[in-house]
Amino acid sequence: MKRILSVLVEDESGALSRIAGLFARRGFNIESLAVGHAEQVDVSRITMVVPGDEAEIEQMTRQLSKLVNVLKVQDLNNVPTVERELMLLKVAAGAGKRSEVLELVQVFRAKVVDMADAALTIEVVGDPGKLVALKRVLEPYGILEIARTGRVALARSSGVSTPILKLTPSDKLVPA
Amino acid sequence: MKRILSVLVEDESGALSRIAGLFARRGFNIESLAVGHAEQVDVSRITMVVPGDEAEIEQMTRQLSKLVNVLKVQDLNNVPTVERELMLLKVAAGAGKRSEVLELVQVFRAKVVDMADAALTIEVVGDPGKLVALKRVLEPYGILEIARTGRVALARSSGVSTPILKLTPSDKLVPA
Repeated sequence: MKRILSVLVEDESGALSRIAGLFARRGFNIESLAVGHAEQVDVSRITMVVPGDEAEIEQMTRQLSKLVNVLKVQDLNNVPTVERELMLLKVAAGAGKRSEVLELVQVFRAKVVDMADAALTIEVVGDPGKLVALKRVLEPYGILEIARTGRVALARSSGVSTPILKLTPSDKLVPA
Repeated sequence: MKRILSVLVEDESGALSRIAGLFARRGFNIESLAVGHAEQVDVSRITMVVPGDEAEIEQMTRQLSKLVNVLKVQDLNNVPTVERELMLLKVAAGAGKRSEVLELVQVFRAKVVDMADAALTIEVVGDPGKLVALKRVLEPYGILEIARTGRVALARSSGVSTPILKLTPSDKLVPA
């Protein structure tokens, strides 16, 4: 099971090192990690995707909260969230294959951000499922390079999220 | 001066900790950091934005290259690159202010990904300048939360990048 933790930290040179060290000591792998400026000055938000069950994540949350420079730890798993990730992908596509690749790019509402004789660089944003799907359809052409940001997430103020809606009884009211 | 380093690492639980530790020991702050799966299986690409001059970055690159699990370090500053970042931003915007905010969203080619009574969540992709600009125009409404991914970058196969073009003599051939 994969869980998302959103951690607010003060911008200090050792802050990330302490967090990464905590995970390393426990032998926990971090699947993805994104660090950028948060809404407050001199504060960064670290969004982490980590594998673990409920008890492990609770323990991690407690230990993270105790670290120097950590201001807040939010477990985003029991609330509806918006989750997005950005991927830049360079695919081999010479003149002969280019229009096939461009069709796929359109289907995925992706964007071509660089075009060379033998390669296209594509920008795509979405949930991780979409990114993996695009990568799969482009694999036969030859994927040269990938840079992914890791997931970022915010709790939905609306309280409404599609996967959660699908689990509610109201979903079953749709006429068959 | 800010520089971009792109580091390929084996997926091991201690890899990120060693990298973050190296920067912390030197007192170097990492401005942004994005970690996600790379083009190869069991390999992640870490894109880092770090402040530093040419000599400091060269030293960092050498030391990073020596770390266990680090496969490749690329300094992306002297080559044309595609650079992108993703931001989720939650802004206070009740019914009275909503259409003003939606206009700004359109201007920045951003997207509304969640709408509640008193807040909108916006997804925007671009270079860091665009993200900062959108944040500034939305500040008067009240920014509630921001999650940024940190920058990712790939070298342009085309070898063509707008800021670099602007510096070449050919740019001056445009009729005045």
